[in-house]
Amino acid sequence: MNTLNSIGYPIYFNNTIAELVKFIEQGNYSRFFVLTDENTAKHCLPVIRSHIDKLDNFDIIEINAGEESKNIDFCVGVWKMLIDFGADRQSLLINLGGGVISDLGGFTASTYKRGIDFVHVPTTLLSQVDASVGGKTGVDLDNIKNIIGTFAQPKAVFIEHSFLQTLPARQILSGLAEMLKHGLIFDAGYWNLLKDSDLKSPSAELVYKSVEIKNKVVIEDPHEKGIRKSLNFGHTIGHAVETYSLMNDKNPLTHGEAIAIGMICEAKLSNIKVGLSNAELTQINEVIGNLYPKYNIAESSHNVLYSIMQKDKKNQSGKINCTLLTSIGQCRIDNICTEDELCESLRYYSTL
Amino acid sequence: MNTLNSIGYPIYFNNTIAELVKFIEQGNYSRFFVLTDENTAKHCLPVIRSHIDKLDNFDIIEINAGEESKNIDFCVGVWKMLIDFGADRQSLLINLGGGVISDLGGFTASTYKRGIDFVHVPTTLLSQVDASVGGKTGVDLDNIKNIIGTFAQPKAVFIEHSFLQTLPARQILSGLAEMLKHGLIFDAGYWNLLKDSDLKSPSAELVYKSVEIKNKVVIEDPHEKGIRKSLNFGHTIGHAVETYSLMNDKNPLTHGEAIAIGMICEAKLSNIKVGLSNAELTQINEVIGNLYPKYNIAESSHNVLYSIMQKDKKNQSGKINCTLLTSIGQCRIDNICTEDELCESLRYYSTL
Repeated sequence: MNTLNSIGYPIYFNNTIAELVKFIEQGNYSRFFVLTDENTAKHCLPVIRSHIDKLDNFDIIEINAGEESKNIDFCVGVWKMLIDFGADRQSLLINLGGGVISDLGGFTASTYKRGIDFVHVPTTLLSQVDASVGGKTGVDLDNIKNIIGTFAQPKAVFIEHSFLQTLPARQILSGLAEMLKHGLIFDAGYWNLLKDSDLKSPSAELVYKSVEIKNKVVIEDPHEKGIRKSLNFGHTIGHAVETYSLMNDKNPLTHGEAIAIGMICEAKLSNIKVGLSNAELTQINEVIGNLYPKYNIAESSHNVLYSIMQKDKKNQSGKINCTLLTSIGQCRIDNICTEDELCESLRYYSTL
Repeated sequence: MNTLNSIGYPIYFNNTIAELVKFIEQGNYSRFFVLTDENTAKHCLPVIRSHIDKLDNFDIIEINAGEESKNIDFCVGVWKMLIDFGADRQSLLINLGGGVISDLGGFTASTYKRGIDFVHVPTTLLSQVDASVGGKTGVDLDNIKNIIGTFAQPKAVFIEHSFLQTLPARQILSGLAEMLKHGLIFDAGYWNLLKDSDLKSPSAELVYKSVEIKNKVVIEDPHEKGIRKSLNFGHTIGHAVETYSLMNDKNPLTHGEAIAIGMICEAKLSNIKVGLSNAELTQINEVIGNLYPKYNIAESSHNVLYSIMQKDKKNQSGKINCTLLTSIGQCRIDNICTEDELCESLRYYSTL
């Protein structure tokens, strides 16, 4: 696996811890901060620590694991710790964790003293194939996902496959949804490869392929003016379902579980609106249905889901905007969907 | 006065309200939001409203006037109002007010949905000659000025001289400090011109000249890697005095009053460290001393002031960094100053 070049920064796949140590030692940084949660502090931080024992200028900022931490209050907490630790503009923030760590860490770093450098060491499958690449940072406000954020590129990304070994199966499934999406929107061959692979523990090569697809898209359109919107397939409905579940369920859906539902619904929308064939729709439902548990979406919740979608930041002039599939491996952006169509796709999911 | 070109955006000085209306009508915006405080809502908003009566898609967000509003809680308030009003990515935020409005408005706009467009309509002398130009946004946290922020350029700046007529004398003086600074660091001729002008109500031409100087600097070095640091003259000590006063005084110093003190102290440091002549030091003290009231800085407060300076975001590796004058109209950046030197300059101010 080659090192990938993204928007001004490298994405390492081989000897990643050694590359991180090299980056730290060769950079002109005054101080180093590691943002972790209790999981990565336990499972991943010791691995890094064991390689950089020389460094004494190394402070740890730990936040609670989980989407509930991805808000402004936690940002303020991180900013205050950076202030208290005396972080100056030549400091480096190392985001060691999943998507919450990279999204929140990227946002706090990009706004602390008008921006300090940061790198990502993604430790979940989801963050390896999605959050760590592309320069989107963000936190939630009022239960709206990523509504506050910046476009800010990390200085490097280090994708260490062995970190995935400590993940529960449900976390692997969460990341897998984005990998399936990469196949569905851009690469039918990759979709077929995934379909026929052992998806309980995706290989390093499969992870690489996903990052390669995402990286190609974000290089072409860093600020999501056009083609990058294709990555939103499954996310209009998926984000709404995720938010709804976060607000209502004791044990909420993971991001990937919600996106899996969103992809089935939006595949149905694709079938209605842009010609995705019945056979491919069925294939998508079967592959996703075999991997992810069924979630109950009552008819009575449709209006709540719709009102969440109305606050989606991808909308324009109040209209709800979806990326849809014309076939497996091909997509079309900027499809305005009506409330009726969106509800029909939710009903379709419920009948499967 | 010509329209100035800044980093990808124009700065208008003539027919500014008409230019703003043209900008609004010709831009491809879905919605318009005006950020104001109670002063500009009263004195300036009606002027704008009277010219754009056609626009119905126009919502007002009002915050309390004053530096106390420039914090994350007020940002959250503005973000929530944007959400509630249904602001999408094609929305425009019009920052109508002084430095607090442009700094906080710029920050909230640059982070809402990862960035929406904004323009500045600065209504104070200080914001006309300083905050509205250069793309720095920011809010305070834990009494540290502008510690959280972004570099984000407005789409246009509209400098309407008549807005200054409603300002109290003390607000004029606050902006004047930055104008004097522009002369001191870059343009002895402009300094002499200011010295000999009626500074109770600076002319549009004097304002233009200041903006021209600042604009030249920020175009050359938008992210403050080098020459832009020259604009920090007076601000290392000045910011500390301003923060100290905000924390301790019932009627705190304005920004300019604090910077005036900072400029005297840092002129003294310039005299000690980089060869500013005694005659020029005296001249600076006289001009500033005649304009600004004396502020009592007790010896016992020096350690507090020093500890505030230690948190200044301009520092590097814990060292306090000043821009100093080699002569009037010439400066040198990146001068490390010791605690002893800084305290000596504070004592010097007290003896004047």
